[in-house]
Amino acid sequence: MKKLSADQIEESLKDIKGWAYNEGSIWKSFKFQDFKDTFSIMTRIAFECEKQNHHPNWENVYNNLTIKLNTHDVGGITQNDFDLAKSIEKIVNNK
Amino acid sequence: MKKLSADQIEESLKDIKGWAYNEGSIWKSFKFQDFKDTFSIMTRIAFECEKQNHHPNWENVYNNLTIKLNTHDVGGITQNDFDLAKSIEKIVNNK
Repeated sequence: MKKLSADQIEESLKDIKGWAYNEGSIWKSFKFQDFKDTFSIMTRIAFECEKQNHHPNWENVYNNLTIKLNTHDVGGITQNDFDLAKSIEKIVNNK
Repeated sequence: MKKLSADQIEESLKDIKGWAYNEGSIWKSFKFQDFKDTFSIMTRIAFECEKQNHHPNWENVYNNLTIKLNTHDVGGITQNDFDLAKSIEKIVNNK
């Protein structure tokens, strides 16, 4: 899996609403209804991560969830990160 | 629920191994086998949090989990935080 250039990252970010690049990760913050709702969505995301064998840095406080994605092995962003981000968007938007 | 003093926090920390006070929270980092193992334990903790109606600030990266507890309503640490910390220890130690 190849490390994406700054230009490639910028281009790919156009496809996933609300995601941004910061300090070596692409990230987004979400707000859900309550803790139950948030953790339910985290569980659906967790299964998808396991399937893709790609795992987030994520932080939860009550109904807030911040997800940061990067590819440790290449020390940057790869297509794997964008694939997972798109899967997360589908889950969050219940598609 | 009453905000605990620094002395009370220090005393209560003696009962929960590996927990420490830092920047307004009691916190501990855990390392588990892999992501599946970690998220399974998080799920058990999530149900306990919901039962106690007390929720953590927690961050996960693969098999690492950092949990920070405080009581937002009083701007500090209460017995609720120590109760949840003890429940988390029981779950983690499979007791």
